[in-house]
Amino acid sequence: MSHTTASLATALLAPASVAIYGASDDPARPAGRPLRFLRAAGFAGRVYPVNPARQQVQGEAAWPSLAALPEVPEHVFIVASGTRVELAVRDCAALGVRLATVLADGFSEQGPDGLAREEALRRIARNGGLRLLGPSSIGVVNPRNGLLLTANAAFAEPNLPAGRVFCASHSGSMIGALLSRGIGRGIGFAGLVSVGNEVDLSLGEICTASLNDDGIDGYMLFLESLRHARDLQQFAQQAAARGKPVIAYKLGRSEAAARMAITHTGAVAGEDAVADAFLKDCGIARVGVLDALLETLPLARRFALSTSTAGPSRVGVVTTTGGGAAMAVDQLGQRGVTVSPPSDETLARIRAAGIAVRPGPVLDLTLAGTRHDVIQPVLDVLVSAPEFDLVLAVIGSSARFQPDLAVTPLLDTKAGRNPLAVMLVPDAPQALARLTQAQLPCFRSPEACADAIAAVFARRPVHSLCRPSGAGDGACHAWNEFESYALLDRLDIPRAPALRLRFDALLPELPFAYPVAVKLCSASIPHKTDVGGVVLGLGCRESLADAIRTLQAKVEYDGLAGHCDEVMIQPMVAGLGEVLIGYRVDPDVGPIVMLAAGGIWAEVASDRSIRLAPVSVQEAEAMVREVKMLQVFTGRRGQPAADLQALARAVSALSSLAINDDRIQEVEINPLLLRTDGVVAVDALVLCEDRPINMSLASAPSPRSD
Amino acid sequence: MSHTTASLATALLAPASVAIYGASDDPARPAGRPLRFLRAAGFAGRVYPVNPARQQVQGEAAWPSLAALPEVPEHVFIVASGTRVELAVRDCAALGVRLATVLADGFSEQGPDGLAREEALRRIARNGGLRLLGPSSIGVVNPRNGLLLTANAAFAEPNLPAGRVFCASHSGSMIGALLSRGIGRGIGFAGLVSVGNEVDLSLGEICTASLNDDGIDGYMLFLESLRHARDLQQFAQQAAARGKPVIAYKLGRSEAAARMAITHTGAVAGEDAVADAFLKDCGIARVGVLDALLETLPLARRFALSTSTAGPSRVGVVTTTGGGAAMAVDQLGQRGVTVSPPSDETLARIRAAGIAVRPGPVLDLTLAGTRHDVIQPVLDVLVSAPEFDLVLAVIGSSARFQPDLAVTPLLDTKAGRNPLAVMLVPDAPQALARLTQAQLPCFRSPEACADAIAAVFARRPVHSLCRPSGAGDGACHAWNEFESYALLDRLDIPRAPALRLRFDALLPELPFAYPVAVKLCSASIPHKTDVGGVVLGLGCRESLADAIRTLQAKVEYDGLAGHCDEVMIQPMVAGLGEVLIGYRVDPDVGPIVMLAAGGIWAEVASDRSIRLAPVSVQEAEAMVREVKMLQVFTGRRGQPAADLQALARAVSALSSLAINDDRIQEVEINPLLLRTDGVVAVDALVLCEDRPINMSLASAPSPRSD
Repeated sequence: MSHTTASLATALLAPASVAIYGASDDPARPAGRPLRFLRAAGFAGRVYPVNPARQQVQGEAAWPSLAALPEVPEHVFIVASGTRVELAVRDCAALGVRLATVLADGFSEQGPDGLAREEALRRIARNGGLRLLGPSSIGVVNPRNGLLLTANAAFAEPNLPAGRVFCASHSGSMIGALLSRGIGRGIGFAGLVSVGNEVDLSLGEICTASLNDDGIDGYMLFLESLRHARDLQQFAQQAAARGKPVIAYKLGRSEAAARMAITHTGAVAGEDAVADAFLKDCGIARVGVLDALLETLPLARRFALSTSTAGPSRVGVVTTTGGGAAMAVDQLGQRGVTVSPPSDETLARIRAAGIAVRPGPVLDLTLAGTRHDVIQPVLDVLVSAPEFDLVLAVIGSSARFQPDLAVTPLLDTKAGRNPLAVMLVPDAPQALARLTQAQLPCFRSPEACADAIAAVFARRPVHSLCRPSGAGDGACHAWNEFESYALLDRLDIPRAPALRLRFDALLPELPFAYPVAVKLCSASIPHKTDVGGVVLGLGCRESLADAIRTLQAKVEYDGLAGHCDEVMIQPMVAGLGEVLIGYRVDPDVGPIVMLAAGGIWAEVASDRSIRLAPVSVQEAEAMVREVKMLQVFTGRRGQPAADLQALARAVSALSSLAINDDRIQEVEINPLLLRTDGVVAVDALVLCEDRPINMSLASAPSPRSD
Repeated sequence: MSHTTASLATALLAPASVAIYGASDDPARPAGRPLRFLRAAGFAGRVYPVNPARQQVQGEAAWPSLAALPEVPEHVFIVASGTRVELAVRDCAALGVRLATVLADGFSEQGPDGLAREEALRRIARNGGLRLLGPSSIGVVNPRNGLLLTANAAFAEPNLPAGRVFCASHSGSMIGALLSRGIGRGIGFAGLVSVGNEVDLSLGEICTASLNDDGIDGYMLFLESLRHARDLQQFAQQAAARGKPVIAYKLGRSEAAARMAITHTGAVAGEDAVADAFLKDCGIARVGVLDALLETLPLARRFALSTSTAGPSRVGVVTTTGGGAAMAVDQLGQRGVTVSPPSDETLARIRAAGIAVRPGPVLDLTLAGTRHDVIQPVLDVLVSAPEFDLVLAVIGSSARFQPDLAVTPLLDTKAGRNPLAVMLVPDAPQALARLTQAQLPCFRSPEACADAIAAVFARRPVHSLCRPSGAGDGACHAWNEFESYALLDRLDIPRAPALRLRFDALLPELPFAYPVAVKLCSASIPHKTDVGGVVLGLGCRESLADAIRTLQAKVEYDGLAGHCDEVMIQPMVAGLGEVLIGYRVDPDVGPIVMLAAGGIWAEVASDRSIRLAPVSVQEAEAMVREVKMLQVFTGRRGQPAADLQALARAVSALSSLAINDDRIQEVEINPLLLRTDGVVAVDALVLCEDRPINMSLASAPSPRSD
């Protein structure tokens, strides 16, 4: 970690001195709160209220300007508004202040003017070596040292709980809500930061700056979008290397906001689905239940991020309450996590300890399980049983009425190969507090419990960055189908044979048998079917010649003659079924690859798998397993089996564009036919940037026939 | 309500006298708890501990037998085990006891012996006019009068909160867990009953018995299955008539438990999907989040069950915290509930009150919204705005720090056409308690909030019972396709023309044009395609004759000649797409009708709609809108539109079997082709009971050709 990062971390969370620019005399107003909070919390650093309009602020001497201070403060919280914000940032930059946080809103979210003012702040900061947090940041809090540099009313809370969790949020109000929910749950924080508009410091950079802090064990992120995804990915990679887990709650984006892309890949993938794939590929546990954002860290800490595609998946459940355990099993099942029954060997080991148990999906100890001498030996057997990756104890009423009795055997369980997690069925605050204090993963609802387990299991090894995210600014153009096929050939993705024929050329002998299909071939007509540009099932030379003439007439009638002067002839190819595979450079997260059910179904059923590109063949096989429609082609139910191995190879090959060609913005193979002996593309579309190619595909694709 | 029901309600919840048969001297043991709890709670009725083995129990005189008591107790709690259970039930019946509750387990859940013992209990009770609760009932609690007739340790709780909610549960441990969660949430109960194995009294009957109790406003059900669904439906119908809402949390059943049916309808529908349809058709709000089971009643109370298919659907959101509101919007969207923006007129009315607001999907008042004089007038406008059915206020940190300030405007909001609900983003126990006390719908998590709203909106008008549930005991047989078509003809469901031809007959002139298809026609071969019994696309008389000979040879080769001596010839029929429609007498809930996406997709995508049969054409139209695949056929995206009105008519017609023929157990039309001008069935399968038909379809269907 560089000196720069270290000093940023200090300025952010442990500055020796802070100034509050625009501090108000009224302690109830947002601009008055930081000074009030810092004093109430007994912050030990030096605090300078700056207010040119007043001699005194809340009974303290006010400084007329930043320049008048006896030292350069490490961190300036600018709580002024309007044009004074830019003046204050200018002063900070001129004085060599390390970090300034800007409370004011009304920047890029308010149109072009605001965007210009935001750009001005960025420029001033960059030129002056100043780092900016915000604007629209409600501030920074470190409960460990009383740094309550915030205008969020929630921090009027007495006795803020210090802890080992760092929280970063796109939403300023949520840091207060999470603080209060943490108090209710016995969870304290090592820091809470509202990142605002991220005009300079991004959420990822802020978290990265805090990584060397030994007082921080893990991260809790509240995300509204994936802007600056590259910074987030770099942070996630370093956090994983240090064994500090990251949990995220991300708001979905509305469908209305989804951009329409020229290929279907954009529409089918959906922004939130891409975000979901991105977070998993960053090894971040994305939860869907708010309580789980608070409750998941102790569980995540017990599972090292795996380096293979096969992560933990098998949950064993032991309970004293059948109904309660059934809720947990149900909720896990809804999230695709299967509860495994104990093996005969495990049951035998439990019986050898003198405890009567019956086989079943869940080990139900009934009331007897409330006895220490029953549940304790059972837990010791389960945490070392090789058929599980996690043991979940679902505890009933005893947790409320005899918290010591209920908790002690859980705390006494010997460490085994399988981590232990606990779900409490009644409202049992004392038991919950003791388990939380002992850092045993524990949950107070079946939903949060299952959500946390599923999110931790769904994490994948951290995908390394292959190129800067953000689409190139250059214009894009589409390749025609023949040019697109040439790319598939280079990637070794099988495609149907094709013969290119100009309208003015003679129809030659075909290198393949009839029946054939003929399509218009033009980069100007990417969606041929929509304009009647495809004719299928032509059984002989005469009907083919007819069809070509008809297409030519159509092109001339539509006034497209200048854009389309040729057709492509292909044999009719049959498959067991069809899929769509797509590659796309997402503007937020960079290159992704998608495998989706074919035809209308991808959109209707959202049946698809997405990963950051590139993916290995092994990872592509995992994607194949995620697409439900493909279960039909595994040879079950008397259906013939498709060559899903070839499909995985094709997905992996397509995804390799992420490292092999940075001009290609989108590729869509739709459909890719599944066969018993391979796959075959029968249509393809490529979008490419208009700039010189600079990687391995250095020569322009040259159309050729088979 | 009959005198019998009234006296059952009294015996259940307010008996003048109770006996505890098998009361233990040890107050910590399950058999000792009821006496201890009753005394601790100061139950005012007469309590008789009965224990032939002891003179004293917990310091009280013990009675040697039920017969020795000075009166016939109204309610006997049998806490003895083993063979003493049956003896006690015998004594109760002999003495004319009204109601006995049996704690012991180990009955039908333990195999044939237990089943026989359960059957014996049922017989003894029936013969003696005794009603039985249990076995495996952990008891009955009425916090209003201290009736703690339970062995559940959870009821050691001091100061049990009395309230106006009645809770019935298949799981005994859950009544304790719900009690504790109610305490944590400020919710009290008017009764809690563990219904056990329902050998006599079912959950539905118990709830029905309590319906006349003016102290009960609504019901909370924890369901493990839908056994005795008819009783539940009758209860739901009466509860709806009295305006007492019912909320249910139902455990899903594992896939392993799903029965395999001869048609796909059983497998595709899935038991839990049938249960879900059943509960909605009972007007019961089924929640999926445990907290929502506790939190939904005040919301449900504000929406009368509609009598039309168009229920409430439009939510307007107002907030002081953008991030918090976004969570609620997200969670609602995931459950198919769309947040509506305020209309221009509504915005104008708010501005006319002097409050600046910006258009958007959510009305974000920001910090200004914490002021009474801002949020109050806004709420008054919103609750009367015609574009909403419900107004959701999402309240931020002020709910925790200034609960009075936050709560008062909510309580002061004038009653309008739209109910008001509240979600609290921080942990804000005081605000929550005040809102709960005022019976304003309020939620402490975005998940429970959205779950409750979606569950209340998803309720449908209560479907009346059309026949006893439970499949007939008689054997079933399949009809061949020709016979099945005859049924479709009677129902006016269009199907492809068909010509029946015996193998030994001459091939006549066809009444329709080539190409044609030919299929084996036999009730013994319901899945013709699987055995190669279908040949498609025969273009001329010769190829048809060839195909018939081949099928005959196949039948003879397979040794099926005795079971199949004819074929069916049909023209090839094309459609825009295909669906499956099915009718089935479910053993739990009775006749249902299903509309599902065609082919493999119904199973892969779970894309289907289910209702209790019969359904009107209007209700069938609502089913059509629920099947996602059918969106493709509404004429969007340049696709031709299918005649979905004809599809709805076909679904409604098929569902009418529920009132027209009680022998038909299953009908499956798969596929039903969708066309621009109607629908057409091209295969059908009927399963019918082997007993005389007794309703409108009185004559056996007679095969005929077109």
